[in-house]
Amino acid sequence: MQSRNKYGAVSGMETHKGIPEDLKQEVLKIIKPSEAERIKLMDIQAELASEVKAAADRLGIPDILVEIVGSAARGTWLSGIHDIDIFISFPEETPRKELETLGMAIARETAKLAEYAEDRHAEHPYLNIVFRGFDVDLVPCFRVASASCIKSAVDRTPFHNDFVKARIKGHEDEVLLLKQFMYGCGVYGSELKTQGFSGYLTELLIIHYSSFENTVRAACSWKPGEKIDIVQHSEIGHKEPLVVVDPTDPRRNVAAVLSLDKFCTFIDCCREFLKNPELRFFFPACLLPLEGSEILERLESRKSAQLAVVFKTPDVVEDVLYPQLYKMEQAVAALLKDYEFSVIKTGVWSGKDETVIMLELISGTLPNVKKHIGPPVWVKEHAQKFKEKYEGAEDVFEGYIENGKYVFEIRRKYPMAKGLLENQLVNCSLGKQVHQSVNEGFEVIENAEICKLTDFDFRVFLRKCI
Amino acid sequence: MQSRNKYGAVSGMETHKGIPEDLKQEVLKIIKPSEAERIKLMDIQAELASEVKAAADRLGIPDILVEIVGSAARGTWLSGIHDIDIFISFPEETPRKELETLGMAIARETAKLAEYAEDRHAEHPYLNIVFRGFDVDLVPCFRVASASCIKSAVDRTPFHNDFVKARIKGHEDEVLLLKQFMYGCGVYGSELKTQGFSGYLTELLIIHYSSFENTVRAACSWKPGEKIDIVQHSEIGHKEPLVVVDPTDPRRNVAAVLSLDKFCTFIDCCREFLKNPELRFFFPACLLPLEGSEILERLESRKSAQLAVVFKTPDVVEDVLYPQLYKMEQAVAALLKDYEFSVIKTGVWSGKDETVIMLELISGTLPNVKKHIGPPVWVKEHAQKFKEKYEGAEDVFEGYIENGKYVFEIRRKYPMAKGLLENQLVNCSLGKQVHQSVNEGFEVIENAEICKLTDFDFRVFLRKCI
Repeated sequence: MQSRNKYGAVSGMETHKGIPEDLKQEVLKIIKPSEAERIKLMDIQAELASEVKAAADRLGIPDILVEIVGSAARGTWLSGIHDIDIFISFPEETPRKELETLGMAIARETAKLAEYAEDRHAEHPYLNIVFRGFDVDLVPCFRVASASCIKSAVDRTPFHNDFVKARIKGHEDEVLLLKQFMYGCGVYGSELKTQGFSGYLTELLIIHYSSFENTVRAACSWKPGEKIDIVQHSEIGHKEPLVVVDPTDPRRNVAAVLSLDKFCTFIDCCREFLKNPELRFFFPACLLPLEGSEILERLESRKSAQLAVVFKTPDVVEDVLYPQLYKMEQAVAALLKDYEFSVIKTGVWSGKDETVIMLELISGTLPNVKKHIGPPVWVKEHAQKFKEKYEGAEDVFEGYIENGKYVFEIRRKYPMAKGLLENQLVNCSLGKQVHQSVNEGFEVIENAEICKLTDFDFRVFLRKCI
Repeated sequence: MQSRNKYGAVSGMETHKGIPEDLKQEVLKIIKPSEAERIKLMDIQAELASEVKAAADRLGIPDILVEIVGSAARGTWLSGIHDIDIFISFPEETPRKELETLGMAIARETAKLAEYAEDRHAEHPYLNIVFRGFDVDLVPCFRVASASCIKSAVDRTPFHNDFVKARIKGHEDEVLLLKQFMYGCGVYGSELKTQGFSGYLTELLIIHYSSFENTVRAACSWKPGEKIDIVQHSEIGHKEPLVVVDPTDPRRNVAAVLSLDKFCTFIDCCREFLKNPELRFFFPACLLPLEGSEILERLESRKSAQLAVVFKTPDVVEDVLYPQLYKMEQAVAALLKDYEFSVIKTGVWSGKDETVIMLELISGTLPNVKKHIGPPVWVKEHAQKFKEKYEGAEDVFEGYIENGKYVFEIRRKYPMAKGLLENQLVNCSLGKQVHQSVNEGFEVIENAEICKLTDFDFRVFLRKCI
C-alpha cells in the first residue's frame, strides 16, 4: 500500500513465512550490478579521481584530497543507476570563498574531459558532469576533524562513507534488496518531493538489523518515535516519526526528512510483504494513464466535486519546488475550509510545463445563506454591536436568537469553490516561486473539464487521485 | 426581536428615554378590563364560589373551602381573557383518592349549571367548564400548612394567590403592561410549547422591581444565573437562566420553565423597546401566510435544501405534545449530523391534523464517496483488522494512508437526506405518542414540494422559518 495509492488485492493470514531465498535471488538478478558493470564503474571512478588530482596539480592547488563516496563507492548501487560522487576536500581552515573558487576551478578543469557540465548549487556550488555516460557530481568540501564539526552539510558525506564502508562488506545485497523494496513501495528517496528513505539510511538500517528480512520484520512493529542509535551516542531528542541517529554526528537524525505517511506506508508494505512475499512488491506494475471516459465514469461514480488549480510550473529545482507545492496544497485546503467547503482530499502533480493542485470536495457549491453566529445576548456591548452591524443590512436574510446567541443569516460571499479560488488564491500564503507563477496566471477547472488536461504523466497521477 | 423571528427594522442610539406615559395609557386603554367587565367577572366569581359551596353542602361534604385564585382574583387579568380558577380545598389529612372522588363530585355537581364541562388531568383530575361564557377550572386541592409542604403541585396556587394579593394592590396596571409586552415579544406563557414567563412570574417581577419600566430596564442587563429572591429565603442552587425564588417555597424556581432563548429574547426586546418605546412591541403586526410563489422565491434566494417531515398530529394535550416535538426536532437534527449532513436550522409546527418538522440543510445530497478514517497504522492489531475489513470489499473506492492513519473511501449509505430520514427516522429516540404517530406513517417532502402544505397557520409559521 502506497500513500494515496490503491491497495493491491493483498490480504491473508498473519502467519509470516520467511522470505523465500528464490525470491531474493530473482530480485538480485535484476538489480545487482554485473561484474562487468562493477569493474567498469570502479575503473571510471579511479580514472576520475586521478583526473581531479591532476587538475589540481595543473592549477597548482595543494592540500586537496579526492574522495570517492556514495553508493558507487560502497558497492550498494542499483544496477543501471550510474551516479558517481567525487568529493574534493580542502583543509578545514580554508576560507569558504577560497574553497568555492578553487574547488570549482578544479571541477571545471576536470570537466574539460566531460561530455557535459552544469553548475549546481546546494549549500556550496558544485559541478555536475556527464563523463563517459556516467552522471558525476564533483563536490568541493571541508576536511573537518569529525562530522560533528562540519562547516557545510556536504562535509558529512566522507564520514558517512567511511562508516558504511567499514561495516557493509558482505551485506551489500541486503542493502540492494531493501532499496529496491522501498523503491517499489514508493518510499525510497530523500528528496523533498518524496520525503522517503535515503540511501545512507537504508545502509544504516542494514548495519543495524543485519539483513533485509530482519529490517522488514522489525518495521512491522515500528511506531512513531522509533529510535535507532547504532553507536549509542544520541545527544538530543527528536520529534520525527523515525529517528536514526547519525553514527558520525550524535545530534543528527538521518531520517529527519521521512514523512509520517511514508514511514507508515513502509510499515504497511512490510506487513503485506511478509504475508505474501512476492516479486510485485519490488517491481509494482506501472499505472496506466486514465482515459477521458474513465475520468467521467469516476466522477459519476463518486459524485463529489473535483477542482484543479492549474498554473505554469515554476522554473526551480524540485527540492525548492515541492515544499512550496505541498505548502500551497495545505493553504488552498485551509482557504476552502475557512469558507465552509468540505475537503475530501487533495493532491499535487507537477510536470515540465504545468502544475496542478487537485482538490476533491463534498460539494463545489454552498447555499447563498450562511449562518453567522454572534455573541451571547447577555454580553451586552458586544452583542449590541454585532446586532447593529447586521440588522437590516443589505444581504442579510434573517436574524434570530439561538442557544442564547444572536444569529444572522447572511449572504455567502463565495457560494462556489471555483469563484473563491479565483478570487482569493493569490492571497494565500505561498512560497516565493509558486506565488510568482500563480500571480502571473492560473486557471481553476472543475469536474469534466479536467479531461482537457491530457499530459500522460498527469493522467497516471489522476488514476491514484480520483 | 423574537426567537426565530425576523428582526424589526429597529435600530438607534443607546440613549434610553423614559417610557412615555402616553404610550402606557394607550396600551392600558386596550388591555385593561373596563369597570363593567371587572364587575361582571367579580360577580360571576362570587356566584361560582357560592354554587360550589352549595354543591358541597348538597352532597354532604364538609370541611371544604372555596378559593378564588388566579389573575381574575388579583385584578391582573388582560381584558377579554376570561379565565377563572376556583380551588376547592380539602383538609390536608384527606386521603388522595377521597380528595379526587369528592372534589370531582362537587365540581360535577356545580357543572350542572354550566354550558359545557370536560374532565382534565394535571397531577389530579380537575374539571374545566364554560359558565356563562367564562372559561372556568374547578380544581380540588389539599389545604396544607405552607407551600413548602404541598402534596400536589396545585396546592401551591392558593399560597401564590395570598402572596400576590397582599402586595399587588396599586400595581395591577404595571402587571398588565408587562404581560402584554411579553405577549408581544412572544415570551408570555409557561406552557411547554412557549417556555416563557408565567402570569405569577410577571406579578413577582413587578413586586420585586415595583414597575413595568424598572423591570424592563433591569432585564436589559440580565445574564444567565440572574437571581431574584424577594423574601431572601433561597435554599438551593438552580441552573436555569433566570431564577425567581418562589416566596412561598424556598426550593422552587418560579422561572424554571423559561428557556434560554425566551430569556434572551425578552432581554433583547427590552433593549430595543427602551431605544424606541413604541406600541408595536405590545401589539406586533400579524404575520401573513407565505404564498406559494413566495416559498419558491425564498428557496431560490437561499439555495439551501428545505426538508419537511410531515405526520399526523398525535391526539394529546400540548404540554405533552410539544416536549416530544422539540425532542424529535433535536433527534432528527442529530441523525442528519451523524450522517454528515449540515443542518442550518430546524423548526416545529403542529396543527390540528398535521405536524411538520422543518429542516434546512446546506445540501440535501452528499457525494457517494465517504471518507472513513481508521486507526493509526502503528496500532498494529486494530489497524490490520480495519484494513482487512475494508480492503477489496464491495463498495470501497480506494484506500490510502493519511496523517499516519488508514483511510478508506467507502460508498455512502445515504447520499440523500430524504432517503436517510425515510429509512432511519423510526429508529430515532422519540416520545411515546410522537413515535406512535410516526410509526403509523410519515412523509418527507423537499424544497418546492413544501408548497403542497397549504394550512394557513403553517404558512404563517413558514414566513418565520424559511
